[in-house]
Amino acid sequence: MKREDIQKLLEDVKNDKIRLEEAAQKIVDLPFKDLDFAKIDNHREVRVGYPEVVYCEGKTVTQVKEIISYMLEKDSNILATRAGEEIYQAIKKICPAACYNKLGRIITIQQKELTPPDSYIAIVSAGTADLPVVEEAAETAKLLGNRVEKIIDVGVAGIHRLFTRLDIIRGAKVIIVVAGMEGALASVIGGLVNKPIIAVPTSVGYGANFNGLAALLGMLNSCASGVSVVNIDNGFGAGYNASIINNL
Amino acid sequence: MKREDIQKLLEDVKNDKIRLEEAAQKIVDLPFKDLDFAKIDNHREVRVGYPEVVYCEGKTVTQVKEIISYMLEKDSNILATRAGEEIYQAIKKICPAACYNKLGRIITIQQKELTPPDSYIAIVSAGTADLPVVEEAAETAKLLGNRVEKIIDVGVAGIHRLFTRLDIIRGAKVIIVVAGMEGALASVIGGLVNKPIIAVPTSVGYGANFNGLAALLGMLNSCASGVSVVNIDNGFGAGYNASIINNL
Amino acid sequence: MKREDIQKLLEDVKNDKIRLEEAAQKIVDLPFKDLDFAKIDNHREVRVGYPEVVYCEGKTVTQVKEIISYMLEKDSNILATRAGEEIYQAIKKICPAACYNKLGRIITIQQKELTPPDSYIAIVSAGTADLPVVEEAAETAKLLGNRVEKIIDVGVAGIHRLFTRLDIIRGAKVIIVVAGMEGALASVIGGLVNKPIIAVPTSVGYGANFNGLAALLGMLNSCASGVSVVNIDNGFGAGYNASIINNL
Amino acid sequence: MKREDIQKLLEDVKNDKIRLEEAAQKIVDLPFKDLDFAKIDNHREVRVGYPEVVYCEGKTVTQVKEIISYMLEKDSNILATRAGEEIYQAIKKICPAACYNKLGRIITIQQKELTPPDSYIAIVSAGTADLPVVEEAAETAKLLGNRVEKIIDVGVAGIHRLFTRLDIIRGAKVIIVVAGMEGALASVIGGLVNKPIIAVPTSVGYGANFNGLAALLGMLNSCASGVSVVNIDNGFGAGYNASIINNL
Amino acid sequence: MKREDIQKLLEDVKNDKIRLEEAAQKIVDLPFKDLDFAKIDNHREVRVGYPEVVYCEGKTVTQVKEIISYMLEKDSNILATRAGEEIYQAIKKICPAACYNKLGRIITIQQKELTPPDSYIAIVSAGTADLPVVEEAAETAKLLGNRVEKIIDVGVAGIHRLFTRLDIIRGAKVIIVVAGMEGALASVIGGLVNKPIIAVPTSVGYGANFNGLAALLGMLNSCASGVSVVNIDNGFGAGYNASIINNL
Amino acid sequence: MKREDIQKLLEDVKNDKIRLEEAAQKIVDLPFKDLDFAKIDNHREVRVGYPEVVYCEGKTVTQVKEIISYMLEKDSNILATRAGEEIYQAIKKICPAACYNKLGRIITIQQKELTPPDSYIAIVSAGTADLPVVEEAAETAKLLGNRVEKIIDVGVAGIHRLFTRLDIIRGAKVIIVVAGMEGALASVIGGLVNKPIIAVPTSVGYGANFNGLAALLGMLNSCASGVSVVNIDNGFGAGYNASIINNL
Amino acid sequence: MKREDIQKLLEDVKNDKIRLEEAAQKIVDLPFKDLDFAKIDNHREVRVGYPEVVYCEGKTVTQVKEIISYMLEKDSNILATRAGEEIYQAIKKICPAACYNKLGRIITIQQKELTPPDSYIAIVSAGTADLPVVEEAAETAKLLGNRVEKIIDVGVAGIHRLFTRLDIIRGAKVIIVVAGMEGALASVIGGLVNKPIIAVPTSVGYGANFNGLAALLGMLNSCASGVSVVNIDNGFGAGYNASIINNL
Amino acid sequence: MKREDIQKLLEDVKNDKIRLEEAAQKIVDLPFKDLDFAKIDNHREVRVGYPEVVYCEGKTVTQVKEIISYMLEKDSNILATRAGEEIYQAIKKICPAACYNKLGRIITIQQKELTPPDSYIAIVSAGTADLPVVEEAAETAKLLGNRVEKIIDVGVAGIHRLFTRLDIIRGAKVIIVVAGMEGALASVIGGLVNKPIIAVPTSVGYGANFNGLAALLGMLNSCASGVSVVNIDNGFGAGYNASIINNL
Repeated sequence: MKREDIQKLLEDVKNDKIRLEEAAQKIVDLPFKDLDFAKIDNHREVRVGYPEVVYCEGKTVTQVKEIISYMLEKDSNILATRAGEEIYQAIKKICPAACYNKLGRIITIQQKELTPPDSYIAIVSAGTADLPVVEEAAETAKLLGNRVEKIIDVGVAGIHRLFTRLDIIRGAKVIIVVAGMEGALASVIGGLVNKPIIAVPTSVGYGANFNGLAALLGMLNSCASGVSVVNIDNGFGAGYNASIINNL
Repeated sequence: MKREDIQKLLEDVKNDKIRLEEAAQKIVDLPFKDLDFAKIDNHREVRVGYPEVVYCEGKTVTQVKEIISYMLEKDSNILATRAGEEIYQAIKKICPAACYNKLGRIITIQQKELTPPDSYIAIVSAGTADLPVVEEAAETAKLLGNRVEKIIDVGVAGIHRLFTRLDIIRGAKVIIVVAGMEGALASVIGGLVNKPIIAVPTSVGYGANFNGLAALLGMLNSCASGVSVVNIDNGFGAGYNASIINNL
Repeated sequence: MKREDIQKLLEDVKNDKIRLEEAAQKIVDLPFKDLDFAKIDNHREVRVGYPEVVYCEGKTVTQVKEIISYMLEKDSNILATRAGEEIYQAIKKICPAACYNKLGRIITIQQKELTPPDSYIAIVSAGTADLPVVEEAAETAKLLGNRVEKIIDVGVAGIHRLFTRLDIIRGAKVIIVVAGMEGALASVIGGLVNKPIIAVPTSVGYGANFNGLAALLGMLNSCASGVSVVNIDNGFGAGYNASIINNL
Repeated sequence: MKREDIQKLLEDVKNDKIRLEEAAQKIVDLPFKDLDFAKIDNHREVRVGYPEVVYCEGKTVTQVKEIISYMLEKDSNILATRAGEEIYQAIKKICPAACYNKLGRIITIQQKELTPPDSYIAIVSAGTADLPVVEEAAETAKLLGNRVEKIIDVGVAGIHRLFTRLDIIRGAKVIIVVAGMEGALASVIGGLVNKPIIAVPTSVGYGANFNGLAALLGMLNSCASGVSVVNIDNGFGAGYNASIINNL
Repeated sequence: MKREDIQKLLEDVKNDKIRLEEAAQKIVDLPFKDLDFAKIDNHREVRVGYPEVVYCEGKTVTQVKEIISYMLEKDSNILATRAGEEIYQAIKKICPAACYNKLGRIITIQQKELTPPDSYIAIVSAGTADLPVVEEAAETAKLLGNRVEKIIDVGVAGIHRLFTRLDIIRGAKVIIVVAGMEGALASVIGGLVNKPIIAVPTSVGYGANFNGLAALLGMLNSCASGVSVVNIDNGFGAGYNASIINNL
Repeated sequence: MKREDIQKLLEDVKNDKIRLEEAAQKIVDLPFKDLDFAKIDNHREVRVGYPEVVYCEGKTVTQVKEIISYMLEKDSNILATRAGEEIYQAIKKICPAACYNKLGRIITIQQKELTPPDSYIAIVSAGTADLPVVEEAAETAKLLGNRVEKIIDVGVAGIHRLFTRLDIIRGAKVIIVVAGMEGALASVIGGLVNKPIIAVPTSVGYGANFNGLAALLGMLNSCASGVSVVNIDNGFGAGYNASIINNL
Repeated sequence: MKREDIQKLLEDVKNDKIRLEEAAQKIVDLPFKDLDFAKIDNHREVRVGYPEVVYCEGKTVTQVKEIISYMLEKDSNILATRAGEEIYQAIKKICPAACYNKLGRIITIQQKELTPPDSYIAIVSAGTADLPVVEEAAETAKLLGNRVEKIIDVGVAGIHRLFTRLDIIRGAKVIIVVAGMEGALASVIGGLVNKPIIAVPTSVGYGANFNGLAALLGMLNSCASGVSVVNIDNGFGAGYNASIINNL
Repeated sequence: MKREDIQKLLEDVKNDKIRLEEAAQKIVDLPFKDLDFAKIDNHREVRVGYPEVVYCEGKTVTQVKEIISYMLEKDSNILATRAGEEIYQAIKKICPAACYNKLGRIITIQQKELTPPDSYIAIVSAGTADLPVVEEAAETAKLLGNRVEKIIDVGVAGIHRLFTRLDIIRGAKVIIVVAGMEGALASVIGGLVNKPIIAVPTSVGYGANFNGLAALLGMLNSCASGVSVVNIDNGFGAGYNASIINNL
């Protein structure tokens, strides 16, 4: 409810166009239902097609299905992350248009047109084993209305492979770097490019990787200054983050 | 060296304007000294006044002084982070224009004009004890040519204080959230605003804070999707990161 | 054995109503069998219907069955936590009245009437994936004789959802907050309400959650002052704790 | 702003007692400045004499002095925790009534009468080295308007010492247990008493105590069900928590 | 090889009773095959029936079977720890006398008479879930030739249960305390008894137990002075250790 | 209070030799003041000269002085661990007989004769930097009435040095192994000797020693079966433990 | 591209033997495709038969199969680590010459002759459970063209077994030590031998081994000076490392 | 004592050239004093001038002085690491030839000629703050008789600086990489060079570096295969290790 709406309401009160009790109720409801920012959020959703998101881990198939049924009525785009095959089969029955990226374990349902900006997001990854996280990030970014360029398997162990792809990396407005093991790729790219870099540590690696801790600490301590970090294996968060920046 | 420069060089070879050996040397030097991206970097520095940065921790006063003497000749802006009082006194002698932010332990030397973009960076912090990190981030962002708005002491324990400042936070192009203890402020702002948020965990807090680990993990696990994280107490990194985004 | 009982015993000795050896034996047994506090405990159990509790993890089906058989004879209410489906099937055979909350993996056997106090316990949770812990806490609290109000899925990422339920949260005598990821919900509620808050970190979340460590540290470091914490995923402990406070 | 106030405002609008712009402004300010709960908070403060709290760690002497000067004007009671001798000297100059508990490093300024309830808080500690935390908890609880009973040096290594004081512990409405090393005291008391126990791990101990981690984990994993835990060395949090419960 | 044996050998050399090359070979072999201590070890094994030990974790069924076949020839007693059902079935085929303690996952093969000393080992445990570790310790101690008394389920949450069994605990020459969760039982017994206590932390417990870390740290930090600690869930080590002390 | 004492008391009641109220009081006091075990403890103290112990860390000089003054009246031997020079100076004034081991930071006051058993305790250490812990253990063991043999600087890096001292190590009834860095010395000795080994990890070492964690974990995971572990740098605990075993 | 090649290219430009655009393109491509070091790498591969390596963990069977199909065309030797049975079956179909070491979970495909140097690599391991890592290291080293000597089951608990094999260990040019639990074997061998030692911690062990952390820290803190460490269970890395040194 | 020496001894026995008791004594002493390997060690020391090493941390000035006095008599080269200024002043008095590298906190005393091999060791470091570790490694390697090339300040944040020095790095026989923060430099060099790389993590960096843990884990998880790791800040270990390899 914008200021002019409040002023309009008060005028209506003054001019007896609305009952006093009714107006009072509207004002009481205001802080929680109609806060300006909530409206902005709704507007943005319409404009850029922001999807509803379901995080499936720890939810039963039935729970996910119910949540998505409810979302489908609202006609918005839908993203279901960490979704196993079984969940996808259940969703497909209530929404045949649902797409499943098996590697990324992510379901996307596009009900609205997307109009990506001109700029694009580059997703760079160190190794093949990082692909599930790359896919989660890519699908997220795409359903949020972005163009995505993937540059796969350019880890630091063979740094010349990275150099042949520098143009496409530098051309992006924002870069997602996905790497496990020691996560050095984020630092190397951070030293070569002057764009915001969102680093995603992955749990890929041998023992003392400690399920991604090594890559996480590596990225947080990056000697390159443009790197910020999201949670281990959090492709969704990286994609979402990059989308906000790409739409600035 | 851009493609046209190479072509020009070859033409000069062809037309005997340059000795063959000299041309060969230029090409041999090319990948390391004159790579395209290096040039871009130089250009950007001139354009937006990107400063040289010295991280003083673990360096002696003499080492810092020598490094800065060298930088001063290049006429660029200079930032010296984690600088104690003693270092500042030494720098002041060789550069009276040096400014010192005691709380943020940061020295700034501005030798070039700055032309900030219209958009600004909001730096939000939870408590008074987070101020040193806020100051480091703010001074960094300002010397990188940005307008900065500081919103101090709006921690989650008194959430209504935050709400009164939401407009200025939402108006920013990018938001830095500085918080110690449990770092919940990043999540709360992330749930209210749709802008990129760079979260800086601080080492402020009681025992099980473990020198910032609690805030770090809290921010990495933020349930709000637009949050990415830099190292504990890394105000410089946050300011640098935010500047890149604010200049997109 | 209260002081007057001892005095009575001594009088009986004096008046030859009891053999000296027999009296000596009673006194020898005293510290371990008849300590005052043990009696108090028994009384309380009768009064408020405190149940016997079996923690099933690490116990075989046979062990649990035997323990509960023994308890059934004592006619008390019984709570079996962390009980898998298989255990429930075994218990049902020896006690058809046993109820099973599958999500909370908890078996309840009510053999005595419960008379809850007027005040109630609010259980607030951040996300759907926290439900198993919510259920464990709720079933525990209910069998301990409390009214429970559940407020589900009001996590910090959408803080306005929380505000619409503040009345019911504030109306409680004690509040259980169940949250995974960064656990910020405890801090936010702690900043809004002046009631004792028992925070339960859950193991819900991405990688650097480290099985609940992030939420645990977050809650322990809460900047809000009324928050105390129980073990990760320990819905039972939270329910038990809240019950003690609600019955003060 | 209660419903009747809104209704009154609308009537004023209707009856031209207030300018429309002014009324609109009041409504716009409403959710953040005048939320019901904020009022409740103010009322409670007046009623039970809740103090303002300053956490001095990480703040300069000047900062603390300024904050307390401001608070003194509001005529409320004041608590400054983690305050070194130097801070106390500075505060004493602007407020001669300030008291300093040197062991607990806590300053208390009582400007309002306190009217403690009949029930009391027991603070039990394992060893002499835990005293600073005991003092912080006790001073906090007392300025929040509670009677406090301290039972010192009854650690598990000499369990019979504890048993002689059980009566006073059981008589309390809520119990704070302060212990370092392995923190077993919380479990032992939890097994003997049916009252809410707030456990405070301390950083007292040899090497593998890891600055309180051992006691913290020990207390979180307590096999006794009525124990909840606050941060390491957080006497203030325990005192505050206990006060809320003691005033239920 | 004792000194007199060497002297005897040299005499044989001198008297041509042994070829010089043969004598040289014996001396070359000496440090590794016939070192005094090795002999002592052999002697002890014969005397007290010390068993050979196989740690089955990480070994294939075939590997374990081969190792035990080889041992069986040497006619010693045999202990196979961490042995699954499948391994037991395989061993039974080559040695029908093998016994299997399913709970303790331990196979014992007694081929020699055992003559326990008069003193005994007490094994005290906190809860039913600790039984597998208790059994591993007990079987180990018994096959090493000791009498064992088990005192089960006397955890700190119900400390009076422990007191009724104090006599049998105090009567032991050495005490093994097995406890998970916070491991407080070791401290409590350490405060009541003046015998060597070997504490075994178990991985039993909720989340922040971190697979036994809580109990491990708790026991290492025990405020009682007679407690030493072995690895998490290491019933074998505790039994072996206790046996050495019981045979002093 | 033994059974015959209770019977005697009852007879006195019967024969009017004691007032009934007085007898009742004695019985009420019984479980906490006069428990059998407390008596045993007192007896043992007299017999073997067990000292009173003060752990000075976290205590003020005044506190330590008061505690020791009180102990001196009881005429027992006294041990004050982790005592700085300043504490020693204060103690010396009230007890000129106090001895100070500066390296071990331990004060010993012997007021009673000690009669060590024939067997002795061997204390073996890896390096010179471990000496403070060795001294703490040795002084503790000696004041507890034991003969001690120290074998210094026989770390694994020069294993032949260890072998030349094996006889004296094997001759001990119990062995304390003090080692920092990786703590391998405990395993090596454990593989050579069949005596109880109490391992003390020390905080000596480079970075990834993490203040003794490396040695602690190393010793807990020792592949040799006779090793149990006390806290990092806990020379006192090791000495106390060894004394109990040496006096079996 | 060597300097003379560049000079040749420029001469061709000068003499019109190449079109200017074409020459420019070659120079642009230069830094990434034809860097000197890349050539050297190719040469080395041809000379010593360095294999291509596939790390199978986190890759699907199909992905591994495709990668190896591509490698087979290049006629190089191939190593696939962390390969399950299923992957091996798939590879065998496209390359019947593939060998599978089941224990080491490693596939080797030798397409080129190997010519090992005279020196050899010794691989020493503590226990049978370390064999999978030993096999991974051995197969890697062999396919990289080295002779390997395995010395198995010579852990510190029975140090005399190690001494009988010292000759073969000392004869190696480089030594790999594989050990779990506390990893003391690396220190012991490091104290006996003056050769480079590559230590591989394994995840073999009881609870507080924390999946190899104990052995890892132990080896990093080794008091012996010639030890360097690779990741937990990283047999491949050790074999590769040792091969580089053995071929110096 | 070699086999022929033993045979010679036996012949002497046979021929009465040595008394039988004397010969027996020599054989008894054999395993500990005269083991073959000890001899080899002595020989090597003479040949390559291996120094004696004193690790000063945790030793008093007096202790270090005594140890070095003793070493000086043996006429070997001496290395004292982690030596503060005060220790150096004390050593200089008893050995004026002692040299002190203040940055590296290392004292070197060269009493014997060094004859370095032709090959050299490259020491590469990421930043100026890593210099103390570089100096410790360099001084160690030099006193062990090696040529050293230092390449300073070529961290990943400016990767082109590294490329200009690749030739000198590739020319080395073995490479030491010293880096703090995320330690990515080891991976990058490992991807460019086919030489053994000894990585030294340093404790240089911001908060979540956790005193070198980030760099340590990063290096252990390096995706480049030729990297092995020594302890945090362990320049000595790296220099020693590299020297062994350089002298192969």
